[in-house]
Amino acid sequence: MPMRKIILLTGFEPFNQETINPSWEAVRALQGWSEGDFIVHARQLPCVFGQANKVLHHAVEELQPCMVIAVGQAGGRPDISVERIAINIDDAPIADNVQRLIVDQPVVYGAPAAYFSTLPIKAIVQALREAGLPASVSQSAGTFVCNHVFYGLMHQARDWGTTMRAGFIHIPYLPQQAAAHPGSASMRLDDMVEGLRIAIRTTLAHTVDVRESGGVTH
Amino acid sequence: MPMRKIILLTGFEPFNQETINPSWEAVRALQGWSEGDFIVHARQLPCVFGQANKVLHHAVEELQPCMVIAVGQAGGRPDISVERIAINIDDAPIADNVQRLIVDQPVVYGAPAAYFSTLPIKAIVQALREAGLPASVSQSAGTFVCNHVFYGLMHQARDWGTTMRAGFIHIPYLPQQAAAHPGSASMRLDDMVEGLRIAIRTTLAHTVDVRESGGVTH
Amino acid sequence: MPMRKIILLTGFEPFNQETINPSWEAVRALQGWSEGDFIVHARQLPCVFGQANKVLHHAVEELQPCMVIAVGQAGGRPDISVERIAINIDDAPIADNVQRLIVDQPVVYGAPAAYFSTLPIKAIVQALREAGLPASVSQSAGTFVCNHVFYGLMHQARDWGTTMRAGFIHIPYLPQQAAAHPGSASMRLDDMVEGLRIAIRTTLAHTVDVRESGGVTH
Amino acid sequence: MPMRKIILLTGFEPFNQETINPSWEAVRALQGWSEGDFIVHARQLPCVFGQANKVLHHAVEELQPCMVIAVGQAGGRPDISVERIAINIDDAPIADNVQRLIVDQPVVYGAPAAYFSTLPIKAIVQALREAGLPASVSQSAGTFVCNHVFYGLMHQARDWGTTMRAGFIHIPYLPQQAAAHPGSASMRLDDMVEGLRIAIRTTLAHTVDVRESGGVTH
Repeated sequence: MPMRKIILLTGFEPFNQETINPSWEAVRALQGWSEGDFIVHARQLPCVFGQANKVLHHAVEELQPCMVIAVGQAGGRPDISVERIAINIDDAPIADNVQRLIVDQPVVYGAPAAYFSTLPIKAIVQALREAGLPASVSQSAGTFVCNHVFYGLMHQARDWGTTMRAGFIHIPYLPQQAAAHPGSASMRLDDMVEGLRIAIRTTLAHTVDVRESGGVTH
Repeated sequence: MPMRKIILLTGFEPFNQETINPSWEAVRALQGWSEGDFIVHARQLPCVFGQANKVLHHAVEELQPCMVIAVGQAGGRPDISVERIAINIDDAPIADNVQRLIVDQPVVYGAPAAYFSTLPIKAIVQALREAGLPASVSQSAGTFVCNHVFYGLMHQARDWGTTMRAGFIHIPYLPQQAAAHPGSASMRLDDMVEGLRIAIRTTLAHTVDVRESGGVTH
Repeated sequence: MPMRKIILLTGFEPFNQETINPSWEAVRALQGWSEGDFIVHARQLPCVFGQANKVLHHAVEELQPCMVIAVGQAGGRPDISVERIAINIDDAPIADNVQRLIVDQPVVYGAPAAYFSTLPIKAIVQALREAGLPASVSQSAGTFVCNHVFYGLMHQARDWGTTMRAGFIHIPYLPQQAAAHPGSASMRLDDMVEGLRIAIRTTLAHTVDVRESGGVTH
Repeated sequence: MPMRKIILLTGFEPFNQETINPSWEAVRALQGWSEGDFIVHARQLPCVFGQANKVLHHAVEELQPCMVIAVGQAGGRPDISVERIAINIDDAPIADNVQRLIVDQPVVYGAPAAYFSTLPIKAIVQALREAGLPASVSQSAGTFVCNHVFYGLMHQARDWGTTMRAGFIHIPYLPQQAAAHPGSASMRLDDMVEGLRIAIRTTLAHTVDVRESGGVTH
C-alpha cells in the first residue's frame, strides 16, 4: 500500500484573554481529512515564544509532511490573510502565555532577516475569492508568536528544499469573539475550514504561483 | 381561530453594482416564519427614493403589522447594527436605482427632523451578543435610501401609537460580496437570519428597552 | 458707534484623561477676533451633562450673538467635521467630568427628537477643502456631552428664529495628543483656528447652503 | 578645515495622480541643514522601479554619506512611521511613473529576502512622541517603489558595514492632499520636517537602539 502524503496544519491555543482560538478550531476540524493521496494531521501549538517552535519542529520531524500550513488568529482582520513573508524578529506588544514579553530578539540568532512563504499565495487568494470567501495577501504577520512560528517553520523548511512547502495563514475572530469586541470583523468557523481546504488544494495544484498583483503601495 | 399577529420585514433589491442584497436574502428566508402567535411577512423594496416608501406604506396598510423591521445592507460594517434614529433628509452620495441623485431634500416636507426607533435597540444588541453574534447600536443610518425608508416608516408608525413598533437594522456584506471588496468585513447569511429572529423575539419580550450604554463620544 | 455683531464660540475643558482639549485651545485663540462688523467671544464649557448647557445658555442670553458655533474634540477623526444634526438623547459611553454616566435620557424632556444645524454645512466643508483643510459633513455628533451641548444650543436657537444661526463642529486630536494615542489622526492647532475662521466667514457669506452632496449610504 | 559628515535624505516625485509629494517637500526643506559636524544633502528620486535605485545609488557613491534616510508618502497613514524591514519583492498595486506595473519580481535577483533598517527605529519613535509628534514603528513598507528604494538602499548599505546607517521613513498626506481624499489623515509639512530633524539627531545619538516594544500581534 502506498504511503499517503502528509499535510501538517497547526493552530494555536487561546491567548490574550480569549477562551477559544479559531486557528485551533479550524485546524482540528481537518484532522484526518483525506483527499486523493494526502491526509491532514492537525497539531496545537502553545502561544509561547520558543516552546511553540519546539512543538512544531518535533511534529515536522515526526510526520515528514510535504506541506505545512501554520494558522493563527488575527483579531480584527476581516478576511483570510495569506502571509507573504516571515521576519527574524520577536517584538511582543503583549505577554505570551507564560507571561514573557520579548522585545527585539531574533527568532533564530545568525539566521537570515526573512523568508518568503513557499505556498502559492496569490493562487490561494484567487481561489478563496472565487469560492466566495474574503481573502487577501498580507505583507506582515506581525512580530508576535504567529510570526515567530512562521519564521521558525520557514527556517526549518529551508533544509528540506522543494520537498516541503510551508507558509502561514491568518484568520479573523469567530463571530462569538467579535460579539465581545464591538467593531471587530469576524468569520464563521466553517468558512475558515473551507478556506483551509481550498488553500491545501490550491497549493497541491500550483507548484508555481500565479502572477497577479497582491501588493500595496505602503 | 384567532388572528395571528403580523410582523413585517422588508429588505432591499441590490444597488450600487451589487447583484445581491443581503437584506432581501435574510428577510425572505423568514417569509412565513411563525412562532407563538405571530407570523412574518417579507417584502422587497426598490432602492429608489420615494418609490421605496410607497411600497412600504402599502404593505403596512395591507398587513396591519404589530411590528415592522426594515433591513438594509451596510457594506463595510462588521456587525448587525441596530439603528437608533431616522433623520428627515435625503442626501445621496450615489445615484439610486433609477439614477437619481437627490441632495438635501427632506424625506417628508414639514415633518419632524427625526424619529427614534421604537424597537428595544439596547435589548436587541444585548441579546445578539449573548447569542454570539456581533452587534452594536448605530447612531446614524446614513442619508441614502435606507434612512429614507427608516424615516418614512417611523413617520407612518407615529400615527399608529403603540400598536405598531418599528425600526431599522443594518447588516454587513455577505462573504461572497466581501470577496469582491478586499478589506471589507462580512457575515454569513444564516447568522443574519438568526439575528433577525433574535431581534423579533427580543422586541416581543421587551415593551420597554433595557438601560445599558450603547452610545459614543462622537 | 454702531454695535458690532457678536459671534459666540464655545470649546470644552479637557475630558477622558486628557490634559488639553483642542476645542478650547482653538476657540480661545479667536477670542476678540474681529473682521468687518463682527467680533468673536470665546467661552469654555465644562464637560458635564446639564452644567455645560447652563453655561452655554447664560452666555447666549448675555451676549445675544448672531451666530454660535460650539466646538468639540472628536479624538480619532481625521478632519474638521461639520455636524448635520443634534439628537435628543444622552447616552454616555464614559463618565462626564463629575463622574456621572447617563444612559438614555433625553437632553430636553418633551422636546423634538432632533434639530438640524442652521449653519451652511456644505458651504463650510467646501470652503475648508478649497483652503486645503481636510473636512467633511458628519451625520452624528455622538451621544455624549458634545451632542448634548449641540442639542441644547439648537433647542435654544429655535426661539430666536433666523436671528441666531447655530451649529457644531468637531475637530481632531492635536498632534501632541495623537502622539500618546498611536494610530490616531491629528491636526495642528493653527489649522483648526484657521478652519474656524473659514467657518465663520462662510456662514456670514451664505444665508442659504450650497447644494452639494455630503451624505453617506449608511 | 575638517570635512563635514554628510547625511543624505531622499524624497520622491509625485505619483498616483498627486501633484505634490510630501516626502520631497519635507526633504528639500532640509537641504543644506547643518548642525554640529554634519550637513544634509537632499535628493529627489523618480517614482519608477529601477530608475529610482539608480539615482539613489549614484548619490550615495558621490556623497559618501554616513547616514541615508529615504522618505516616502504613505497616503492614509496617520503618523510618521519608521520602517523596520525592507523586503526583496516588487509587487505593484498601481503603475509606477513610467506606467509599468511590476508583479512579483525581486528588487535584486539572488539577494537576501530582507534587510532590517540600521536606524535606531525605537529610539526615533520615542523621541518623536516625546516631541509631541505622532509616530510608530511600521512592520511593512509595502511592495511598491518605497519598499523598492528601501531595499535597494539597504542592499547597498550592506557593503558599507557600520560606516553608513540607513533606513526608511513614511510620512502621511499633507492637509491639502487629505482635503481631496475625505477620510484620510494628514500632517503639516513643518511637523514632518521637524520629525526628520529629530530622526537625524536621534540616529546620531544612538549607535544602539533602545529596547522598547514597537511590535504588533499580527
